[in-house]
Amino acid sequence: MTQPIPMVEIWRGDLLESQHLGHAVVCDASGNVVEAWGDDEKVIYPRSSCKMLQALPLIESGAADAFGLTSEHLALSCASHQGAAIHTDRVQVWLNDLGLSVSDFRCGPQRPDDKEAHEALVRAGKNPCQIHNNCSGKHGGFLTLNKHLGAGSEYVEVDHPVQRAAKAAFEEMTGERSEFYGIDGCSAPNFSTSVTGLARAMARMAKPSGSDSRAQASTRLVDAMRAHPELVAGEGRACTELMRAMDGKVAIKTGAEAVFTAILPEQGLGMALKIVDGGTRAAEAAIAGLLVKYGVLDENHPMARKRMYGPILSRSGLHAGRIRLSPDFIQL
Amino acid sequence: MTQPIPMVEIWRGDLLESQHLGHAVVCDASGNVVEAWGDDEKVIYPRSSCKMLQALPLIESGAADAFGLTSEHLALSCASHQGAAIHTDRVQVWLNDLGLSVSDFRCGPQRPDDKEAHEALVRAGKNPCQIHNNCSGKHGGFLTLNKHLGAGSEYVEVDHPVQRAAKAAFEEMTGERSEFYGIDGCSAPNFSTSVTGLARAMARMAKPSGSDSRAQASTRLVDAMRAHPELVAGEGRACTELMRAMDGKVAIKTGAEAVFTAILPEQGLGMALKIVDGGTRAAEAAIAGLLVKYGVLDENHPMARKRMYGPILSRSGLHAGRIRLSPDFIQL
Repeated sequence: MTQPIPMVEIWRGDLLESQHLGHAVVCDASGNVVEAWGDDEKVIYPRSSCKMLQALPLIESGAADAFGLTSEHLALSCASHQGAAIHTDRVQVWLNDLGLSVSDFRCGPQRPDDKEAHEALVRAGKNPCQIHNNCSGKHGGFLTLNKHLGAGSEYVEVDHPVQRAAKAAFEEMTGERSEFYGIDGCSAPNFSTSVTGLARAMARMAKPSGSDSRAQASTRLVDAMRAHPELVAGEGRACTELMRAMDGKVAIKTGAEAVFTAILPEQGLGMALKIVDGGTRAAEAAIAGLLVKYGVLDENHPMARKRMYGPILSRSGLHAGRIRLSPDFIQL
Repeated sequence: MTQPIPMVEIWRGDLLESQHLGHAVVCDASGNVVEAWGDDEKVIYPRSSCKMLQALPLIESGAADAFGLTSEHLALSCASHQGAAIHTDRVQVWLNDLGLSVSDFRCGPQRPDDKEAHEALVRAGKNPCQIHNNCSGKHGGFLTLNKHLGAGSEYVEVDHPVQRAAKAAFEEMTGERSEFYGIDGCSAPNFSTSVTGLARAMARMAKPSGSDSRAQASTRLVDAMRAHPELVAGEGRACTELMRAMDGKVAIKTGAEAVFTAILPEQGLGMALKIVDGGTRAAEAAIAGLLVKYGVLDENHPMARKRMYGPILSRSGLHAGRIRLSPDFIQL
């Protein structure tokens, strides 16, 4: 088994203070590995980085069209949003349109990461609820599919038709049988795959073959993510800022415990990476580095530099340190 | 150079999802290494885990007594507090007693981690200020020493008498010449040492030799930390909870980028550890494991279990995963 490689370094003064190891794979749409670092067969949970795969049955089943979902709904179904009003307002309308309420969610409450939304809750003396959960858009998709299927209310159980459909799509796209599953932060099952399997799935999203329902669903989801970067994450977040920096040409998605995926339609490539220690700052730096290396992100774009180089400032604004891609990984 | 070893594992379902590597050293008061994992000569920044060393000149100079500092002041001077009212109220009185104001601080503003304090600020429409900085107690100590010395206002500059005194004490206690320094989050310089040097300094704090001013200052600072665990960090925090779980017998201190130190007076031992990737959850699990291994923390105390084992829950409260000490590190 190949070991993970140093990917991202944190420097303070002239000392390497911290270091992140990881695995990364770039695949083409035939499923072949174009380039790999670390152990390309490492089995991981993609966590939220595979939401676009989990959303495939929503379209393929006919549920999305039956309920008139727009590209905004589809972007939200692939989102890890930060509970800003632009996210929660849309999810609330979606629920209303389904004739459902927040109590039909099974994702659990979460404090919004969006500063304004959080402070509005505090001022109103309200607690965060399930609609603020960063996965409430994904669960909006699950509930839509569930209504279409007419299945039971406990849609996050692993043997529920909604999750069985998500797993089938996931395995078909990764080209692997998933060996493990874990309960995600939003209580839905998350299925394991190798880093290569995840990159392969992203390449197939990037360049779907044929014109069947899978190809159409893939294209619609990727187009929705690229059209609405602000819905996929939110202001200040890596997914939103980097997708904007690439002028909507590429769709990217973060996952908990430092997973990142990228879908490059023009190149017909998919990317997946996992930082071993789960450090999000490193996953963000690493995906930015890969996107620069493959020519879709300008190294000098401020949003690219922010993720790849820092700077790290003290709380009074002094320059304290910097981020750097490890030369073992990428030399730009 | 010895490589870091696996120290802490994050499991989700039956899959090892993430893993943290680290270095750790236990020293006795003679400065000898009792036990070590990874590279005991690894050079690190202790960050806030060495605040008790930075506070030595405050006492040794006579400043603490000249300004009538109590054990609460001394605990705050070693603290990374979370900006709760019990912290900021005391620091404000301290500043008043010095005839100084918040604008004399050079630590920069920081949003309180304490939920109640943060929400009170939001409701009042106020921004966090420098007194909420987790290091405002340390800076209270710096300002007290500075007033005693009659030196200039820019007390965080590396060649300022306050920082020169801190560096001298640090090097004497670690027994090493510090090669690097970095700007800490609070803008004060933070000096490098090896993991062994840091553990050695903690052992010397645990069992000071002789009855000179260094020995007295060490004992007063360690006693203050042990007497006021709630001032050293705050409710819900690892330092506070684990010190309470050990009935005040041991002083422990976290540092940014996943450093942890422990001072064991009864055993005459000092501990220091660094997680390579800067993941705080792993530093907390690892120090708890070391304290259990050395017989000062009950493995079954709920606060020990919380750090060493989790559980990791989904946002709706389902059991999703667990933390585990790597068997390469400690088998309990």
